[in-house]
Amino acid sequence: MKNTKIYYKRKIKFKDPIMIVGLPGIGSVGSLVGEYLKNELGAKRFASLYSPHFIHQTLMLKSGYTRLISNRFYYKELKANTLIILLGDTQAGTPEGQYEVNEEIVRFFKHLGGKTIYTIGGYSAGSHYIQNPRVFGVATDKYTKNALSKKGILFGLANGAIWGSAGLIVSFAKKNRIHGACIMGETSVLEIDANAARAVLEVIKSILGVKINLENIDKIKNETDRMIKELEEAQKSVQEGPTRKENFPYIR
Amino acid sequence: MKNTKIYYKRKIKFKDPIMIVGLPGIGSVGSLVGEYLKNELGAKRFASLYSPHFIHQTLMLKSGYTRLISNRFYYKELKANTLIILLGDTQAGTPEGQYEVNEEIVRFFKHLGGKTIYTIGGYSAGSHYIQNPRVFGVATDKYTKNALSKKGILFGLANGAIWGSAGLIVSFAKKNRIHGACIMGETSVLEIDANAARAVLEVIKSILGVKINLENIDKIKNETDRMIKELEEAQKSVQEGPTRKENFPYIR
Amino acid sequence: MKNTKIYYKRKIKFKDPIMIVGLPGIGSVGSLVGEYLKNELGAKRFASLYSPHFIHQTLMLKSGYTRLISNRFYYKELKANTLIILLGDTQAGTPEGQYEVNEEIVRFFKHLGGKTIYTIGGYSAGSHYIQNPRVFGVATDKYTKNALSKKGILFGLANGAIWGSAGLIVSFAKKNRIHGACIMGETSVLEIDANAARAVLEVIKSILGVKINLENIDKIKNETDRMIKELEEAQKSVQEGPTRKENFPYIR
Amino acid sequence: MKNTKIYYKRKIKFKDPIMIVGLPGIGSVGSLVGEYLKNELGAKRFASLYSPHFIHQTLMLKSGYTRLISNRFYYKELKANTLIILLGDTQAGTPEGQYEVNEEIVRFFKHLGGKTIYTIGGYSAGSHYIQNPRVFGVATDKYTKNALSKKGILFGLANGAIWGSAGLIVSFAKKNRIHGACIMGETSVLEIDANAARAVLEVIKSILGVKINLENIDKIKNETDRMIKELEEAQKSVQEGPTRKENFPYIR
Repeated sequence: MKNTKIYYKRKIKFKDPIMIVGLPGIGSVGSLVGEYLKNELGAKRFASLYSPHFIHQTLMLKSGYTRLISNRFYYKELKANTLIILLGDTQAGTPEGQYEVNEEIVRFFKHLGGKTIYTIGGYSAGSHYIQNPRVFGVATDKYTKNALSKKGILFGLANGAIWGSAGLIVSFAKKNRIHGACIMGETSVLEIDANAARAVLEVIKSILGVKINLENIDKIKNETDRMIKELEEAQKSVQEGPTRKENFPYIR
Repeated sequence: MKNTKIYYKRKIKFKDPIMIVGLPGIGSVGSLVGEYLKNELGAKRFASLYSPHFIHQTLMLKSGYTRLISNRFYYKELKANTLIILLGDTQAGTPEGQYEVNEEIVRFFKHLGGKTIYTIGGYSAGSHYIQNPRVFGVATDKYTKNALSKKGILFGLANGAIWGSAGLIVSFAKKNRIHGACIMGETSVLEIDANAARAVLEVIKSILGVKINLENIDKIKNETDRMIKELEEAQKSVQEGPTRKENFPYIR
Repeated sequence: MKNTKIYYKRKIKFKDPIMIVGLPGIGSVGSLVGEYLKNELGAKRFASLYSPHFIHQTLMLKSGYTRLISNRFYYKELKANTLIILLGDTQAGTPEGQYEVNEEIVRFFKHLGGKTIYTIGGYSAGSHYIQNPRVFGVATDKYTKNALSKKGILFGLANGAIWGSAGLIVSFAKKNRIHGACIMGETSVLEIDANAARAVLEVIKSILGVKINLENIDKIKNETDRMIKELEEAQKSVQEGPTRKENFPYIR
Repeated sequence: MKNTKIYYKRKIKFKDPIMIVGLPGIGSVGSLVGEYLKNELGAKRFASLYSPHFIHQTLMLKSGYTRLISNRFYYKELKANTLIILLGDTQAGTPEGQYEVNEEIVRFFKHLGGKTIYTIGGYSAGSHYIQNPRVFGVATDKYTKNALSKKGILFGLANGAIWGSAGLIVSFAKKNRIHGACIMGETSVLEIDANAARAVLEVIKSILGVKINLENIDKIKNETDRMIKELEEAQKSVQEGPTRKENFPYIR
């Protein structure tokens, strides 16, 4: 029984769609990149995905209305392609749910005539704040790997496993003969790592050939840098103080 | 596979049914309001919902008989509408179960010709006992929001997420073009908050245009108020005593 | 999708079958009673139930062979009825599994022409060893309740909820118009309470009108009584000793 | 709904296939034996099994590509039989998933004309390192038990339950009239017990009638022996030191 469903808000003609997947995950890199792209490019929502494998929550909006937990598809016409951005409140909560939801996402994208998917994630690298994050990649095929390598994405350095949508969507893309890659910003201790997101955005700009103003994310990045610096200096002057985590609850 | 089933105890003709959903949840506000309405209005049971997503328990009754864990539908003829009250021992225990059970509840209500659903819940507000609880709301549409605003329900102040039936039923109502709202009594530390329930009952009386004697719930409310006061005074005289929670296990 | 399956080992003609359900549970009362009856009456296995909702284990037998975790049906011809005894290694591990397995058990028994089911369980009563356990009951109907009351089973005293098969089978019996009751021996701290089981066996003997030699269970009961007595005396002479549980790991 | 699927990489003609199942488990004995056989015999992959009951992970490969978590079938032509080796990253994470995946494995093997399955596992035996591990077995039938006994496998000594694939595959083999046995190397404290794996490999060599060079696993075994010896001597000289586990995190 397929329980995960996608509803159209509006029907659109797509030209060679490319999809960027920006869902919640490590360092919130996926969400940050996806939301930023949507806002800066002015992408519009055209479909929503609902699933009983998402947590059973309804969101209360400031307007006094409600919205069911969902993943949402946005689109923006670029020169040669339609860009699709997938954002969401959550990912499925079980392995079975993850398989169902992510297969449905790829099936839907294929149905729209899609040829390439980039999922965005964070790559966890130790316990120190990363000042100059690298961008790692894994891809479904040689063509995609080569194209992304030229943009400065590092292949063959990341290892281990990717959890959830960022990995499964790439796996299901491969099965469906869609070009796919997971693009990961190097991150570490931060719950919301604007610095890692910024590094990924730089690369995405180049891949899509679009202009994106990075001023807003620069502000967050600079504020984070300053905060981390203060924190590190405070730590130096302490002999037997509490742990970093206890002092700064917004840091994991 | 749909496993959740509703059995009729008796078949009834409904006129423009309105449903109040009073299921277990925060501060037991939903259950308290639903049970109180059922008892004061003398509503009769006409259907029961069973689901394998409920906990696998059978209740032992004082009569020496048994009853399977369930949700139960009651009805009462009002002037212009049939009032339906949904009560229950429990809610579904998984996200998948929550989606199935709540979709089935809305489908059933729609099948009966229903037009409006109000779910009742508690809105968790800090860690101090709320002497004069406010009543918050979120709605599916402008019409419902305006109608309830006039009754003193506050829209746009509640934020965050509603867990379970109180939220999902409103979401599924919207999808089925049924007017819906979640009406929440402000509550905090109490497991069973008669005060929050009383505040919601005042509003419900006005919405339904029925007379409901609030004497019985006033007694519980006054007893709670007195108890909390004693507790607070006891706390003042203690320097290094145990926490409120340890002393008064009936308070969360 | 129904995944739970029952396989016949041999096909038998049943006359007005009565079923005793003795599955693992509180104080192991169900298992003890069921196994004892099977052994003393020389009942033979005729069917086995397998389910993916049971734990994923295969048992290693002393013979060097294996057996998949299961529930097993035994039969014994009595004067007027065929007695069916249901035993098992385990119960289903989720609510959904419990509903599926127990519905299948009742459906199967109905298919065999069954009219009456007694499930056996332990009724948890405080934290002291019960020297003279009472036998409590809950039933589906007046007829069954009256019949069992005459045998000394106490109705209307047990309250709360019955977990799992002992309760769900009675609930599903009722739905299928099969007479049903849950018969519970009073128990407390013991993991395996031969005393509670003995009390239930006395009643079952009378209900079925069969002779059952209780000597073997008497031995276990007497040994338990002696052990508990020693334990209590040891406890008296200790001021700051370890808890009962730590000293005697076979006691919960 | 069957969600577990097997995809062929290449179609092969099999002659009386025998399958060795080497999946992750106690002491990694199954994985070690399976991987070693595959490498030493030069077995080639011909099919892969994917399941939503596996953890929702995608592996990042050194090549810069990805691979979905899976179980994989390899084959090698022997004199009289085709040897099939089943390896995998993981086992299913729930009882329901275990039943589905293992039934599918046996169904697939039967479809290939398979007659005999040996699953490999570790048999947990106390908390001391086993210098000279024994090899235990349980089988589906007398024929298989006798044949394996002659190879030095000990029957009737192992007891308790086998978790997961190593047990369920033997159970489902029996149901499908396929000869089956679980062959277990005696193991204890090691996460990866090359010594137990070596003992099993000696027996497998003899069962399959193939030459396998054990030099490589001998090296690992000797290194482990040396390490354990050092550890034990270190322990002797310590009065109030940390536990073995804390000192040597690679030992369970």
